[in-house]
Amino acid sequence: MKLNSHYLDLKDSYLFSTVARKVREFQAANPGKKVYKLSIGDVTLPLAKAVIDAMHLAVEDMAKKETFKGYGPELGYDFLREEIKKYYSRRNVELDIDEIIVSDGAKSDLGNLLDIMDADNKVLIPDPVYPAYVDCNIMAGRKIDTCSGNEQNGFKPMPNENYKSDIIYICSPNNPTGAVYTKDELKAWVDYANKNNALILFDAAYEAFIVDKALPRSIFEIEGARTCAIEICSFSKTAGFTGTRCGYSIVPKQLVFGGISANALWNRRQSTKFNGTPYIIQKAAAAVFSEEGEKQIQANLQYYRDNAKIIKEAFEKKGVYHVGGDNSPYIWFKVPNNMTSWEFFDKLLLEKNVVGTPGSGFGENGEGFFRLTAFGDRDDTIEAVKRIVELL
Amino acid sequence: MKLNSHYLDLKDSYLFSTVARKVREFQAANPGKKVYKLSIGDVTLPLAKAVIDAMHLAVEDMAKKETFKGYGPELGYDFLREEIKKYYSRRNVELDIDEIIVSDGAKSDLGNLLDIMDADNKVLIPDPVYPAYVDCNIMAGRKIDTCSGNEQNGFKPMPNENYKSDIIYICSPNNPTGAVYTKDELKAWVDYANKNNALILFDAAYEAFIVDKALPRSIFEIEGARTCAIEICSFSKTAGFTGTRCGYSIVPKQLVFGGISANALWNRRQSTKFNGTPYIIQKAAAAVFSEEGEKQIQANLQYYRDNAKIIKEAFEKKGVYHVGGDNSPYIWFKVPNNMTSWEFFDKLLLEKNVVGTPGSGFGENGEGFFRLTAFGDRDDTIEAVKRIVELL
Repeated sequence: MKLNSHYLDLKDSYLFSTVARKVREFQAANPGKKVYKLSIGDVTLPLAKAVIDAMHLAVEDMAKKETFKGYGPELGYDFLREEIKKYYSRRNVELDIDEIIVSDGAKSDLGNLLDIMDADNKVLIPDPVYPAYVDCNIMAGRKIDTCSGNEQNGFKPMPNENYKSDIIYICSPNNPTGAVYTKDELKAWVDYANKNNALILFDAAYEAFIVDKALPRSIFEIEGARTCAIEICSFSKTAGFTGTRCGYSIVPKQLVFGGISANALWNRRQSTKFNGTPYIIQKAAAAVFSEEGEKQIQANLQYYRDNAKIIKEAFEKKGVYHVGGDNSPYIWFKVPNNMTSWEFFDKLLLEKNVVGTPGSGFGENGEGFFRLTAFGDRDDTIEAVKRIVELL
Repeated sequence: MKLNSHYLDLKDSYLFSTVARKVREFQAANPGKKVYKLSIGDVTLPLAKAVIDAMHLAVEDMAKKETFKGYGPELGYDFLREEIKKYYSRRNVELDIDEIIVSDGAKSDLGNLLDIMDADNKVLIPDPVYPAYVDCNIMAGRKIDTCSGNEQNGFKPMPNENYKSDIIYICSPNNPTGAVYTKDELKAWVDYANKNNALILFDAAYEAFIVDKALPRSIFEIEGARTCAIEICSFSKTAGFTGTRCGYSIVPKQLVFGGISANALWNRRQSTKFNGTPYIIQKAAAAVFSEEGEKQIQANLQYYRDNAKIIKEAFEKKGVYHVGGDNSPYIWFKVPNNMTSWEFFDKLLLEKNVVGTPGSGFGENGEGFFRLTAFGDRDDTIEAVKRIVELL
């Protein structure tokens, strides 16, 4: 038996483990000192009451023979798919219910969708980037090109006729930079993909943070996207489901390559290698779209958005180059005095007891930059920002 | 972009959809008649009270900031992995906690584990068989050999030096046949795998139905298995989790091929393409192992086991060839009068209004056989058996 040797080409990612180790060491050496964490990409507010109530009811369904649920539909219950359909319809994106495939989260979908694609496709991935995009493709032995996000393009790389890529990753609002593509910018990518028979994998995990009505929250707001794009979305950041696990992918019926329907293949993949998201969790996700649920979730999102605004305004006031923070939970800024990302990390931790994430951990182009997140506690965010500003 | 063209080699499985269509048509033509279903491979009893209580508590944890859980460990919470470790330890199988990887179910693990294996391994799959084993390997373009289960070997194929296989599937207690390998029989497979540098994928989904203490419930009860086997198990049939979704795989640290650790690769795969099983669901699974939980679950299992006994005894009394039913929820029997499986299906439905599953749907060797399941209602099972016997 031979194991998949492509796994040997993976680099170990030490980013988050190194951050954690350095914080641990600092705390051991300074037991009295409070550390302010603006590094965490995880939500901190509890689930909305409407979601909690829906889960208790669903648990009770599982307790009685008459309402007990065994195997559910692999691609998701219609009660949830209908809610997602309406959610898109409110933004004038009309989907067929069969185009919405419910899963246990965006990370699973981003990994598993590659199963329906040939190994010898060439992949285009922005730098800086969420590390899993790269790793999933290395595991399959695919060739990877990168497109540079940088200060010149506002960390929004644009298409270039020199790329010869089959699969293009776009994350907007972006993790780690917080940059958000405009409709015109996404249109350029869609046109490029359609012209070159390429597929766009559009990661919309942070779409709920967009408040500017002119900015697209779905790739399917762009004309032509139905023949070139798959969208991956999640309840993780929208509704605090990082530990509750529910997401979905949108695979249009017009998405056809070499005469083969991507929707049909994804349906077959999920029916064969997946057995659906738990009934209780799908009931929880459906409650996100109820009138009460929506109100409560928007209140939580506003809490994080206000944190982001506090962070962003500090950089604006200081005139420090930054992106994100207005339609995104991430703020990405240039570290002062030509320090490296890790030099700034150490200085910030040791002198100001604040933790962020070094940009260089997300790729070469992240060197000299730093990521902060809005998912923390309000008072801690205010204090941390005050301390960061003292170093700028 | 090229889609994965191996998907075009998949055959459409019409087994369960055809069964469903025929039942629908019968019911439409005979609106007054009750149909007795012994075809369903899904549980029907509600979740145990201990599990329900644990889920309500876990939902409350998610409602409060102090106890809210965001991202959990990708490979499972230690509170659950420790319980699984103890569960195996009670059978004298000692596992390291890092060898137990929690997932959303056996179907996902059976599909996703193949990700860490090279595409050009040759696979050995028994016939008859659970159809997903075959489909998952066709999707990766692997060559597949079959080993025959038949009346001569009691539907337990044994190793043969003519096989040149790298990956071997074993399901015991078997779906669809209900046959259970003895320790000596499994030892022959383990020895064969170790000698030939092959991997055994051992599907233990039905292990909880084994009551005969001499029969192995885990491949790791067999000496030598730690260097050649992965076990996949699930709470679906043990505790009625088919719609609740939790399973686990056991990947020993001694499982090394070409100097590469399978455990390390599986860990990396799951950390990259999976984000853990929901906290609430893992709490539910842990409750299965509590004193109360165990008692309640055994009561449910006994209900199904008694159904199986009722079915099995009818065939014994009639002297009809059958396997399964004593340590398994499935009973597999030879249809009378040289009918094909589908001929018997039609006769049973039309004349006796009972539904089962035609054996030929599970592979060539299933032709002339028929599967019944013990997951139904007691009274319906008794009545259905009475009616089946009238046809034998």
